[in-house]
Amino acid sequence: MEYLPTDYIRFGDNKKTVVFLDQTLLPNRVEWKETANRTEMYEAIRALKVRGAPAIGIFAGYCMAVLSGAYQTQNVHEAMTLFKTDAAYLNSSRPTAVNLSWALKRMEKVFAGALRQGLDAAKARAAEEAERIHEEDIAMCRSIAEYGLTLLHDGDGLLTHCNAGPLATSRYGTQLGPVLLGTERGLTFHMYVDETRPLLQGARLTSWELYNAGIDTTLICDNMAGLCMKEGKIQAVLVGTDRVAANGDTANKIGTSSVAVLANYYHIPFYVLCPASTFDGATATGEDIVIEERNPDEIREMHYREPMAPKGVKCYNPAFDVTDHSLITAFITDRGIVRPPFDTNLRHYFS
Amino acid sequence: MEYLPTDYIRFGDNKKTVVFLDQTLLPNRVEWKETANRTEMYEAIRALKVRGAPAIGIFAGYCMAVLSGAYQTQNVHEAMTLFKTDAAYLNSSRPTAVNLSWALKRMEKVFAGALRQGLDAAKARAAEEAERIHEEDIAMCRSIAEYGLTLLHDGDGLLTHCNAGPLATSRYGTQLGPVLLGTERGLTFHMYVDETRPLLQGARLTSWELYNAGIDTTLICDNMAGLCMKEGKIQAVLVGTDRVAANGDTANKIGTSSVAVLANYYHIPFYVLCPASTFDGATATGEDIVIEERNPDEIREMHYREPMAPKGVKCYNPAFDVTDHSLITAFITDRGIVRPPFDTNLRHYFS
Repeated sequence: MEYLPTDYIRFGDNKKTVVFLDQTLLPNRVEWKETANRTEMYEAIRALKVRGAPAIGIFAGYCMAVLSGAYQTQNVHEAMTLFKTDAAYLNSSRPTAVNLSWALKRMEKVFAGALRQGLDAAKARAAEEAERIHEEDIAMCRSIAEYGLTLLHDGDGLLTHCNAGPLATSRYGTQLGPVLLGTERGLTFHMYVDETRPLLQGARLTSWELYNAGIDTTLICDNMAGLCMKEGKIQAVLVGTDRVAANGDTANKIGTSSVAVLANYYHIPFYVLCPASTFDGATATGEDIVIEERNPDEIREMHYREPMAPKGVKCYNPAFDVTDHSLITAFITDRGIVRPPFDTNLRHYFS
Repeated sequence: MEYLPTDYIRFGDNKKTVVFLDQTLLPNRVEWKETANRTEMYEAIRALKVRGAPAIGIFAGYCMAVLSGAYQTQNVHEAMTLFKTDAAYLNSSRPTAVNLSWALKRMEKVFAGALRQGLDAAKARAAEEAERIHEEDIAMCRSIAEYGLTLLHDGDGLLTHCNAGPLATSRYGTQLGPVLLGTERGLTFHMYVDETRPLLQGARLTSWELYNAGIDTTLICDNMAGLCMKEGKIQAVLVGTDRVAANGDTANKIGTSSVAVLANYYHIPFYVLCPASTFDGATATGEDIVIEERNPDEIREMHYREPMAPKGVKCYNPAFDVTDHSLITAFITDRGIVRPPFDTNLRHYFS
């Protein structure tokens, strides 16, 4: 097997730049961008050139290391002010991204701490911390992948919905971790990829990632998943998640709950792959999760040459849905596999 | 209520032309075409400007009436030869369309029969028969609509998949019959329309038809139907069908079986609306129905400004699926409502 996992975000030469793959151009153009410019970094996050919660955190770490590495001042107080200003600026690119502010705070803390040993030490420490954030994410993904592999079998057909692969995280990804790691080890999987309307993350990102990794990949429309299950093509479903409530109810991309209902009907295991940090003990059940509605034009006309429905027709465009815990076979996390009853078994994982 | 149902296929002035709405230009352009030209008629069917099994049959009737009405010969044998040639030509436009050959044969039979009274009588009889085919279809749709209305309630939210509305049939349509007839009578329905990937018949046709009829219409992606059900927006599902097996297994547009599984899970009635002629007693179960696969590019790039997945990625593109009879609440037909057990109750409807 020739597949080598790629890091889609990394330092450039001498750690003076950050290099990243522009996700907005996929799948038609594979363009790597390299920058040391604050405005371009801001724009990369804002315009979703870098997307996926963990990927944004990793990117923010590298950005702060690159920016602070170029500070010309010898005054530590001035350096700290510059750092805070840069971090606040990047943080404003996508204010709701929790991993963004988390990574920026973490970088600021180590930079401030190392400044006591002087500016050069602080710069070196920032570069080190950026790589550490990345390595921790890779280790987390790898751990999920290892646990996930214990549940899959050589030759399995696997269905995915949306994207929580390497592009959105690091190296192996969460959702796709077992598939990529297993493929490295010589296992064969047959991947069925829901295109995931309306933003088409499955078609544009997941199928691209899997195809690039040399894995047998078949793209389907979301409404074909049920037939694939009925025809015996699918042995397990793999999805990611944005948030898991205390009882196991799971928020993820719109359509996930329907895939879970179908898997349940056809007696196919439904696995949620995520870091333990995704568990939100403060949210009792899925009913406490508010579902964001997005622009109707994403359904009516986005990606198309011309609108596909009359302008006056209303569109309901929920960004995600909540899968009832009773439909979930297990959570595959970096700390282990969690099976029902979730209300008691998940408690160990709340931080 | 101001909605007046429109006939999308009809005679032009003096029955010298056939007038039809070009469905390929919907929803962005509403263009009526009028023709007395054999080649244009052929092209209308071949290029799906007229589509939907009953609509094709109705169109073929009008076409043969228009063509034969213009015959200049006074020789009845020559007229019959012309008729057969024209019918064979039109029939070759879409050889698999059963309603096309059925309507052409019916027209030929009455034309041949009336020729004994002379050419003028045969021409008049052909025009009459074309209108009769149309009227019979309208009556069939109206009967389905009346039966369907007995199962719906004022204020209901109703989910549709694909299109079997007026454009595909006549006047009220099959699937949308109860909705259009009920709306005429002052009832209010809230329609949720699956966009129906990859050909988007729901977005392009169903939402256009319902919106034009002044009905409250909300377009959704196929993967949102489950959430709409979970949120209590849907009180019943209405679908059409291409073929019903002896045990009630039902072939319809890809994704229909998944909607049925979801409706079953959320305890929502799932209704199949169709003429009794759709029952195929010669097919024992859905397992005997072969599922046609279509061009992968319909998923990868059709309608889009640029491809949405790498060219090398495989696509599985089944045109339809089979809904298990156990998931169907009732068939709403022109001859009445058929409930389980279908294997015995459907037998009365086989012709």
